[in-house]
Amino acid sequence: DIVEALEAALSGHSPAPGTLPLDAMPEHDNHSPTPDAFMAAEAIPASRALAGQHVVITAGPTREAIDPVRYLSNHSSGKMGFALACAARDQGARVTLISGPVTLATPENITRVDVVSAVEMLEAVDAALADCDIFIGCAAVADYRLAEVAEHKLKKVSGSTGLALNLIENPDIIAAVTHRQSPPFTVGFAAETRELARHAHDKLVRKRLDLIVANDVAAPGLGFGADDNAAVLYHLDPDQPDNPATSHTLSPRAKQDLARAIIDYMLPLYCGHQSMRSPVCS
Amino acid sequence: DIVEALEAALSGHSPAPGTLPLDAMPEHDNHSPTPDAFMAAEAIPASRALAGQHVVITAGPTREAIDPVRYLSNHSSGKMGFALACAARDQGARVTLISGPVTLATPENITRVDVVSAVEMLEAVDAALADCDIFIGCAAVADYRLAEVAEHKLKKVSGSTGLALNLIENPDIIAAVTHRQSPPFTVGFAAETRELARHAHDKLVRKRLDLIVANDVAAPGLGFGADDNAAVLYHLDPDQPDNPATSHTLSPRAKQDLARAIIDYMLPLYCGHQSMRSPVCS
Repeated sequence: DIVEALEAALSGHSPAPGTLPLDAMPEHDNHSPTPDAFMAAEAIPASRALAGQHVVITAGPTREAIDPVRYLSNHSSGKMGFALACAARDQGARVTLISGPVTLATPENITRVDVVSAVEMLEAVDAALADCDIFIGCAAVADYRLAEVAEHKLKKVSGSTGLALNLIENPDIIAAVTHRQSPPFTVGFAAETRELARHAHDKLVRKRLDLIVANDVAAPGLGFGADDNAAVLYHLDPDQPDNPATSHTLSPRAKQDLARAIIDYMLPLYCGHQSMRSPVCS
Repeated sequence: DIVEALEAALSGHSPAPGTLPLDAMPEHDNHSPTPDAFMAAEAIPASRALAGQHVVITAGPTREAIDPVRYLSNHSSGKMGFALACAARDQGARVTLISGPVTLATPENITRVDVVSAVEMLEAVDAALADCDIFIGCAAVADYRLAEVAEHKLKKVSGSTGLALNLIENPDIIAAVTHRQSPPFTVGFAAETRELARHAHDKLVRKRLDLIVANDVAAPGLGFGADDNAAVLYHLDPDQPDNPATSHTLSPRAKQDLARAIIDYMLPLYCGHQSMRSPVCS
């Protein structure tokens, strides 16, 4: 009976205190698994390193209304955030997935909260942060919203040939998370079209992130909307924060596969950060 | 054999010259069909009033790039345009469906052309118009695009708290169609949040439309993204264009159902317009 087999496999995989499944870490393995191996890996997690942890993940774009029919948005499909939610769940975490407007089905055993704008996403993040252990800000939150949203559909003004939209800055959701008194372990994303390393390192420091995942969204076949992605991970040594950031390159692969590699790479960093309070790292 | 039955039904339904299937017009019937009746109506068209006609339909939103990751768009889902494409096909038409970015599957036996921006949509419409008999502009084309599209992702400027986007007018696709030397029979749409009748009548005259379909996108449960819609159709009498427009109200119903009612209502108007050249109306 496959259900019994699955339950047996799941119940037997909580790691013993003091151990971390480092041997399961695939980050130096650039081979994509075969489809069969991939499905099996989804069905039966290799470890339960995040058992008991609450992981909050934002995904997708936000939409900022111009009027009742028009909006500003971006090309984020939500696939990377949804894949991270599955990867964290497969490591035993309780996952809250806060998503902007996307066309993806809700993965099993994940609590999904749908939002539209950056302000709504911030409210949902605030509500989820009460008992959050790990926050992964994967959403492509709009940096700006309209200074004023028109109540009715804007009409073209005859005689004029242009229009100026006045935008104001949105709240910085990830900075709001890391600037709390007891911030969770926080992972950020940098989607860039050039100077990836410089922008990512700047964001890592400025936003007080524990780990940043940088990707080049201008690379053909990767990034926004695509099924594959590549990334470079950057983090500082918490004991020597003035040292240069450590970087780790993850070659192009399916987003599910990349998500698993990111979660696996994150685990020892999380335990370094959390060693005083998390039973999974004690 | 269901295939044989379908083929027999299809081949036997070209209307005789001089007849129009007015008895099939459902616009005074406010009852939604049951799901079974609905499927049957899709599988076996009631008539082939548009056999031999080329119908070009635009659908969905357009997206206007701000930079490589951000854009302006609107809430059009494409459902109404796709439903119209199916309704025209089911009346025997050859259909070209020019669609902005939507998440809908391509209906069978329809030629689909995918575009992103208004300028791309205009180019696709121009290419399809060579032998177009009926043009239905159902797309929610962005009125404006960015005056300049940034080559690289815009970064927040430190110290500033706002941003102004300078927009310029997009080409008016439907006016470009009706202002040709021999325009096709042209149906436009007006999605409004207030003063529906005034805006629709103004657009009917200004854009030289043969028929306009007006809907109130602020009505809850109807319009953009919803599965149901209602509409008011307006048209002028070609022989007495200074008379007030005739209006015809279609109560709320499934978009597929509304699409069929719009095509059915359009048929005698099309034949009035086309009587000199279309064999289906001779």
